[in-house]
Amino acid sequence: MPLIAQKFGGTSVADAGKIKNVARRVVATKKAGHQVIVVVSAMGKETDRLFNLAHQIDKHPAERELDMLLSTGEQVSISLLAMAIHSLGFEAKSFTGHQVRIVTDSSFNKARIVRVDAERIRQELNQGQIVIVAGFQGMDENLEITTLGRGGSDTTALALAATMQAEVCEIYTDVDGVYTADPAIVPEARKIDCISYDEMLELASLGARVLQLRSVEFAKKYGVTIHVRSSFNDQEGTWVREEDSSMEEVIVRGVAYNRDEAKLTIKQVPDRPGLAATIFSTVAGANIVVDMIIQNVGEDGLADITFTVSQSDSRRAMDILASLGEEQGLGEVECDTGITKLSVVGVGMRSHSGVAAKMFQSLAKEGINIMMISTSEIAISCVIESKYTELGVRTLHTVFDLGGA
Amino acid sequence: MPLIAQKFGGTSVADAGKIKNVARRVVATKKAGHQVIVVVSAMGKETDRLFNLAHQIDKHPAERELDMLLSTGEQVSISLLAMAIHSLGFEAKSFTGHQVRIVTDSSFNKARIVRVDAERIRQELNQGQIVIVAGFQGMDENLEITTLGRGGSDTTALALAATMQAEVCEIYTDVDGVYTADPAIVPEARKIDCISYDEMLELASLGARVLQLRSVEFAKKYGVTIHVRSSFNDQEGTWVREEDSSMEEVIVRGVAYNRDEAKLTIKQVPDRPGLAATIFSTVAGANIVVDMIIQNVGEDGLADITFTVSQSDSRRAMDILASLGEEQGLGEVECDTGITKLSVVGVGMRSHSGVAAKMFQSLAKEGINIMMISTSEIAISCVIESKYTELGVRTLHTVFDLGGA
Repeated sequence: MPLIAQKFGGTSVADAGKIKNVARRVVATKKAGHQVIVVVSAMGKETDRLFNLAHQIDKHPAERELDMLLSTGEQVSISLLAMAIHSLGFEAKSFTGHQVRIVTDSSFNKARIVRVDAERIRQELNQGQIVIVAGFQGMDENLEITTLGRGGSDTTALALAATMQAEVCEIYTDVDGVYTADPAIVPEARKIDCISYDEMLELASLGARVLQLRSVEFAKKYGVTIHVRSSFNDQEGTWVREEDSSMEEVIVRGVAYNRDEAKLTIKQVPDRPGLAATIFSTVAGANIVVDMIIQNVGEDGLADITFTVSQSDSRRAMDILASLGEEQGLGEVECDTGITKLSVVGVGMRSHSGVAAKMFQSLAKEGINIMMISTSEIAISCVIESKYTELGVRTLHTVFDLGGA
Repeated sequence: MPLIAQKFGGTSVADAGKIKNVARRVVATKKAGHQVIVVVSAMGKETDRLFNLAHQIDKHPAERELDMLLSTGEQVSISLLAMAIHSLGFEAKSFTGHQVRIVTDSSFNKARIVRVDAERIRQELNQGQIVIVAGFQGMDENLEITTLGRGGSDTTALALAATMQAEVCEIYTDVDGVYTADPAIVPEARKIDCISYDEMLELASLGARVLQLRSVEFAKKYGVTIHVRSSFNDQEGTWVREEDSSMEEVIVRGVAYNRDEAKLTIKQVPDRPGLAATIFSTVAGANIVVDMIIQNVGEDGLADITFTVSQSDSRRAMDILASLGEEQGLGEVECDTGITKLSVVGVGMRSHSGVAAKMFQSLAKEGINIMMISTSEIAISCVIESKYTELGVRTLHTVFDLGGA
């Protein structure tokens, strides 16, 4: 009997009525002749409520205890969903992460799944049960409860789908699928029917928020087909799967943007061998991820080095560079948070040239200055001033012909 | 280092402020040179909130799923208490029932503890940790989450105290201890300083509500000293422990009452061998516990059989007796829910005679009619009309001289 994994996010199980809706959808899948594994998140604002309780007690709660606390949210949802399925006359059992042995490493708040024990789930499925598993949580080798961090329930669903060799992992959410661009900015953005893992990885890392990067990495690694779709209607959403030749016919699959980066510039860096390496290894040593880098050498032999980091790390990066600057005789450091990284993504770029030129020209034509550029095999990104974000996204969406028929 | 187990009920951890208070009390015990195990219940009305959620989904939720749901309440409390202890600068770790392997049978909603694994707790205590354990919950051999039913957190605390050979198990509650009678009825009721397990068992089974019967049975079986005390002040409460000779000096330790029973009378029961056995085995077969029984044989050779059951079972008992009546030719069945069982308890009764006579006389003098009587070695109970409850309790309290100095 074919197996389907389904994951429902917090908005899909926000109250008793919505949980009953999810139950009907799960039962419909079961009735259609599938075995079903369901993964659910905590109800709506439950995680916020628990966070709040913790912060009333201690502003910096221990990570271990925070995981103990937050993991209760999913445990509530799974039991309620089981009850809702029972009341429709179907068999279902809920399981915590530890009960189905979702074993993780010991990094509280951001644990990674090491393995899942298929045995218990297999038994229950074979007895006709709908198996409901708490998302977002696991346990380490020492029976400690861990949580998987942002997007953790998606990761749980994909790990279970991979382990149990599900036909597809359906990710139910409050949008209809993955779009060619943010519909809030581009009204004529289209839902993408089918996208490759690599394209989805690029879109996720470049700012699209429907799926978390880690989940897509997981799906790619184990070859799990994802179907991202709405929990509020029955329409097909977006399929994320292995690349096939038809996918190359589309040059650009989608446009993404990210406003959460900051651009740092170190002025007048002496031309000394190994100095750039010292700068970036110092930054990396503080656990700050550097994204794009450019270097401009002036006529005086001194260079300006510019790079981007996430805005949340920019304050810390400035402090590190200030003290390093005194030590190494660097010039002053400037920080610009008013930037946006604008990207186009598509596997078709591999076999089509001229995409970059078309992108730069169309932005220039709108008077949008490009400050930095980076490229990968299937993506091109430009850093622009934030105020041009919407204009830039719409321009690229039009110029690459991504709109509706 | 001496070990103390402490249990805090839901009212003691009802909000962030109260949890901080509990943390201060736990830390004070640690500072005084003890190892500490703490057991907590769910916050205030949390269990009610969860019940409510379940009932919005299904009026009769599956017991397994209800335990999955309800056990989250204690998991929230333990993590918050650990955070509160950390913020006072002390080390603490919270544990669910499954993490410290509180193994129970598989009776969801009313599981019994089979064993507790001391190893993990011992390790943590020896590393200087304050160990916080979720009350009310355990897991069965199949990793299923179970709950222990009413008073379950007390049972958890006593099981841990017994397993870890704690010096004492402190049960913190919202009253100062066990009283000679319900202070709401008898203003001059006194807190009892010291009481034997057997007396406490009788009081608990006869209507006193401070400790649950099962917890006291557990304490007696494993010889754990209980100290029932208030979480809102530092005064000594009531010690519950092995009987010693000094305890026999007091004839009556306390007065209890129970308004939750119903009296059933089967009229005109033929004098046929084995018929009474048939009646009571039928009732017992429906899982209805019979308390007191009397039989009056009339001149016609037909008997009236009267017995008491809990009010919640009385409707079901009536139905069973009605159908049995047709089959066996019994007379009609009457049910009286307007009764109270009034009891006096004390180990001193073993060596002092005349307690029963004094009880009956003093009730008669107040015009209170006695409908049924039962006795044990250390308790005497009378069934009276409910309207005389308060008068009866006060009369016995005075006549056995239980008031303050």
